[in-house]
Amino acid sequence: MKLRDVGEDQLLEQLLPKSEPNSGVVLGAGDDCALVESGKPGLLNLLKTDCLVEGIHFAKNTRADLVGWKAMARPLSDFAAMSGLPRFALVTLIVPADREVSWVRQLYRGIEKAARKFEVAVVGGETSGIKGPAVISISVTGFVENDRWVDRAGGKTGDELFVTGRLGGSLRGHHLKFVPRIAESRWLTENFRIHAMMDLSDGLGTDLPRLARASGVGFEVDETALPLNRGCTIRSAISDGEDYELLFAISARDSRSLLSRWQRKFPKIPLTKIGRLNPKSKTQNRKFPGGYVHFK
Amino acid sequence: MKLRDVGEDQLLEQLLPKSEPNSGVVLGAGDDCALVESGKPGLLNLLKTDCLVEGIHFAKNTRADLVGWKAMARPLSDFAAMSGLPRFALVTLIVPADREVSWVRQLYRGIEKAARKFEVAVVGGETSGIKGPAVISISVTGFVENDRWVDRAGGKTGDELFVTGRLGGSLRGHHLKFVPRIAESRWLTENFRIHAMMDLSDGLGTDLPRLARASGVGFEVDETALPLNRGCTIRSAISDGEDYELLFAISARDSRSLLSRWQRKFPKIPLTKIGRLNPKSKTQNRKFPGGYVHFK
Repeated sequence: MKLRDVGEDQLLEQLLPKSEPNSGVVLGAGDDCALVESGKPGLLNLLKTDCLVEGIHFAKNTRADLVGWKAMARPLSDFAAMSGLPRFALVTLIVPADREVSWVRQLYRGIEKAARKFEVAVVGGETSGIKGPAVISISVTGFVENDRWVDRAGGKTGDELFVTGRLGGSLRGHHLKFVPRIAESRWLTENFRIHAMMDLSDGLGTDLPRLARASGVGFEVDETALPLNRGCTIRSAISDGEDYELLFAISARDSRSLLSRWQRKFPKIPLTKIGRLNPKSKTQNRKFPGGYVHFK
Repeated sequence: MKLRDVGEDQLLEQLLPKSEPNSGVVLGAGDDCALVESGKPGLLNLLKTDCLVEGIHFAKNTRADLVGWKAMARPLSDFAAMSGLPRFALVTLIVPADREVSWVRQLYRGIEKAARKFEVAVVGGETSGIKGPAVISISVTGFVENDRWVDRAGGKTGDELFVTGRLGGSLRGHHLKFVPRIAESRWLTENFRIHAMMDLSDGLGTDLPRLARASGVGFEVDETALPLNRGCTIRSAISDGEDYELLFAISARDSRSLLSRWQRKFPKIPLTKIGRLNPKSKTQNRKFPGGYVHFK
């Protein structure tokens, strides 16, 4: 039996989290980052790895600096999802021998640009040839305070749901240029109790049910409230994916204060209330149009 | 200009360490692991990533569990090189859709076996398809005490050089089954002042000059003393590579005590004095037979 017959993603994901955690693991595979002891009381280490494979995640003719930016920005967006501060990165470049040197230099410029912007030090890595497509794999470590990390599992019935920025249409360019919401996420947990949070990488229609499931609750969404990117439909805002915006749940009583303080702090970035968490028995999908694969 | 025209390894390695370190970096790219602040006084974090690419580092018909073992054991050997304790791993599996499911399961069994043996928790990872060869990339984090880490740069004139185990002939099987010398390395730094250390991945002929260069000294080796694997020549012990044994420099006055205590502690593992560090002006290669590429 081949991987494609069983659904490769499922199999590979099944395999990954099987390993027995040792004593220092707070959160293993399954959330945006892994969370482990740092040795220092009050502080935890966050670990995340992410890869881009040519022909799967990007086309060969994509500008290499944008590929590099994205390769670094994706794991950093997972740090934002948990309100962590990234610090150090290991970069693995696997490139065929017939690739232009200028392509590799440009790729690396994009990686460095993202690393510099978020004060992440590239402290090492690995390089290899390949008889096939290029692969960029980046692992990032960093810190989060014991009392500030946010996973997907803390959402409560009655919480209101918010998203940052606008949704949909990412493939027109946003997916290569997005800015991880680290500053915004750090501000949120400094000033508010965020119950659950994640970054929207697979689209609201896939990611919101994940958050609700992890929290053991249902949800409802006011589709007409969704903040759409120009020219996007509600459908594409739900299904396109690669928004790399934050989705989070917060107590309804904090909602008004959150919105007004956010607007003063981040006047250029919309923050939108899109729905709420419900008791589990209400079906999640009532308010979404039927037919989206992710909502089956 | 293509990568192959400039020597891909050189270019890729040139690119990697360019990033500006932030304040928490103790050792960046260039040694066996990166060394960064852990947040806890007295303790540092070690970071290492390593990849195996099918068709470059292993043949497609290699037993998948051995590939998995090696993929995890290689970065762990770099922890041994710096006397660190590995704790957490992120595993990236990039596998084409037409690969047998059993191959993937076997690969993962090998990864897990090595992780369990060294009490490393696989806390996450990433999976992807690829239109090309399989790639396994593993990043490991762990700890080392401020006063116990060893890099390549601390060797001193007059130090004696030791290697663990036996050298040469690794491609007959050892390169897929080796056991990272973590216990041995931890014992060494608990009981002795080790001035410089590394693991032998590219062969003594390549790696010893690296250690000497990092330490700013020369070296001489007594070839007849080299501990050879069965059926191996001196030449192959110097040049084959993939021994994954420890090479270290220690003060001559500790040498006798080291040998007798080692024999009691690790009776099955040879420890051999192979030479010494010299003032730089003595040329390094005098005692090696000419003609090895690595000694040019």
